[in-house]
Amino acid sequence: MIIDSTPKKDGFVMPAEYEKHDATIMIFPERPGSWPYEAKEAQKVFAGIIKNVAASEKIYVVVSGNTKEKAAELLEGTANVEFLEIPTDDAWARDTAPTFVKNRSTGEVRAVNWSFNAWGGDYDGLYAHYEKDNALAKSICEKTGYDVYDAEPFVLEGGSIHSDGCGTIMATESCLLSPGRNPKLSKKEIEEKLKDYLGADKIVWLPRGIYNDETNEHVDNMCSFINKNEVVLAWTDDNNDPQYEMSLACLETLEKEGIIVHKLPIPDHPVTVLEDDLMGYVFEEGEDTREVGERLAASYVNFYFTNKAILLPQFGGENEESDKRAVKILSELCKDRKVIPIPARDIIVGGGNIHCITQQIPAKG
Amino acid sequence: MIIDSTPKKDGFVMPAEYEKHDATIMIFPERPGSWPYEAKEAQKVFAGIIKNVAASEKIYVVVSGNTKEKAAELLEGTANVEFLEIPTDDAWARDTAPTFVKNRSTGEVRAVNWSFNAWGGDYDGLYAHYEKDNALAKSICEKTGYDVYDAEPFVLEGGSIHSDGCGTIMATESCLLSPGRNPKLSKKEIEEKLKDYLGADKIVWLPRGIYNDETNEHVDNMCSFINKNEVVLAWTDDNNDPQYEMSLACLETLEKEGIIVHKLPIPDHPVTVLEDDLMGYVFEEGEDTREVGERLAASYVNFYFTNKAILLPQFGGENEESDKRAVKILSELCKDRKVIPIPARDIIVGGGNIHCITQQIPAKG
Repeated sequence: MIIDSTPKKDGFVMPAEYEKHDATIMIFPERPGSWPYEAKEAQKVFAGIIKNVAASEKIYVVVSGNTKEKAAELLEGTANVEFLEIPTDDAWARDTAPTFVKNRSTGEVRAVNWSFNAWGGDYDGLYAHYEKDNALAKSICEKTGYDVYDAEPFVLEGGSIHSDGCGTIMATESCLLSPGRNPKLSKKEIEEKLKDYLGADKIVWLPRGIYNDETNEHVDNMCSFINKNEVVLAWTDDNNDPQYEMSLACLETLEKEGIIVHKLPIPDHPVTVLEDDLMGYVFEEGEDTREVGERLAASYVNFYFTNKAILLPQFGGENEESDKRAVKILSELCKDRKVIPIPARDIIVGGGNIHCITQQIPAKG
Repeated sequence: MIIDSTPKKDGFVMPAEYEKHDATIMIFPERPGSWPYEAKEAQKVFAGIIKNVAASEKIYVVVSGNTKEKAAELLEGTANVEFLEIPTDDAWARDTAPTFVKNRSTGEVRAVNWSFNAWGGDYDGLYAHYEKDNALAKSICEKTGYDVYDAEPFVLEGGSIHSDGCGTIMATESCLLSPGRNPKLSKKEIEEKLKDYLGADKIVWLPRGIYNDETNEHVDNMCSFINKNEVVLAWTDDNNDPQYEMSLACLETLEKEGIIVHKLPIPDHPVTVLEDDLMGYVFEEGEDTREVGERLAASYVNFYFTNKAILLPQFGGENEESDKRAVKILSELCKDRKVIPIPARDIIVGGGNIHCITQQIPAKG
């Protein structure tokens, strides 16, 4: 059911990701321009993540006619998995599945549908055809029974926002104010949309995100709430790295807001596209392509909270030491959750990471 | 275990009452100066409330050596009831049981112990001996296994605060700034204590509470959150009633804060102490006494949220119409909860109402 109102009017707010979930949504990958070599490695890594999520909550896995058999094979015998057969353009559930809001008084959970234009539409979108992705959120709601607030034609991806569950939304200016999203709206009008559809009363604007992040620097790759008024921020101490000024600018904003910041250093060595990767992609017309040596937007902040764990990207190779450092930092900050290291090079080659391919449905009640 | 820190430092916040509970705490009544005729009628009404709570959550019922048999008899066959045998001075669980705080990231719930001095100690306290009540919170924690933050010697009763679950605490100046509580602390210092021990970042100060409320006008008889940024406020349109100016002053404060206010009219006719009531009380030395015709602090705001219902005081007799009005207003505001009318004259003769005799333990996780 489409609800002709807004979450704000009805007393709904977007819970924090670390609050209890009823379920997670993921999409099984197949797009040849995102996942090299017919997505074989990506599918294995996604299946591993699905199993880790399923260990403490239900997981909806969106499959297509092409992927359903492979998904069923790789996930055979895994409890808590429910397949939803819906066509998609790619596998970024964070950005194309609904965002969920909750009324803390009644305990009811509802969905929000945004307009999706592949991270920038004609201006700087990453693929030319995104009709299926744009229709996904409503299809998921139909199949799962969640009522939906419809924010269209407002363009937004779930990865471009984080909520503290108490009315504060964190976002990057580089993304939300990019001309590829809502060029006719002023910053103030964009703030009002976020407030109306996420039940928020305050927006913390970080200036930038991760260097070379093709989403126009989504916040979810840069900074994540780990508690109310407490975040981890992607960081580097190397002032020759282009990331340095970007992280520093965010740190200054967060400190001005009185938010407790824990630095989470990015990988010690750039994660780049290799010749072997490049030979595996098949790009379609109008799709953003890759090149050898291109620096990928690798960040440890792109982790995901399940009910019992944190699924943390690891990049391997010469980044073994920084991989371990990230595990240690998050383990110390989030003592009640098990930090599970996930080899994630086969996800970052698609352009995002574990947070980008997951979307939580907060617990009812 | 006593925790040598504060909820604020550890990322704990007091959830809103309407969020999910793991349990409720009540105390079986017996004090002769509060409950006329050996508390016979009060015990029946308390037992009815306990059964209504037990319908949707666990309830801990604190009993003494004197009351345990009667409580067991009246509650025989009721599921979800656990008795805790601990001596008390009276039955106001809201004010003498612990306050509970939750870390939304880890899901952990902990308790806070305040200093209790019977609503004013030597200055204007209601009874002279309150050692057992002051020791109650820690005893409950020992028996139920909750770790405790110890706010002593800071004096506070649970009924003098409401939380929106997101860092805003609502309290009355008339109570918290009364010389009977923390006379050596400034308003600013009292704010800091509330922030530290309830994980709050903002205090909304209502100037007054309910006329003739012997708690120095606890907020829980005057104004209650029904959602984030939304309250019900005790109200009268009769500008000859002393309540009029008190409610108006609070309305002005709430409107300035941008909080949505729903007016909940007080009973149409004053609820007073009758000669028959008076003959039933047995007062001890140093105890505040009652007199015939004394106006009791009757208010419909003194309701309690259980997981599935709102338990709403009703005063009966010539207030039948305003009783029904209150049921109607709350039913329309809180559509997902069943409003259960509870004849509560036998509680208000003790000086408080349903909210004053209940204390929620928020759900873990």
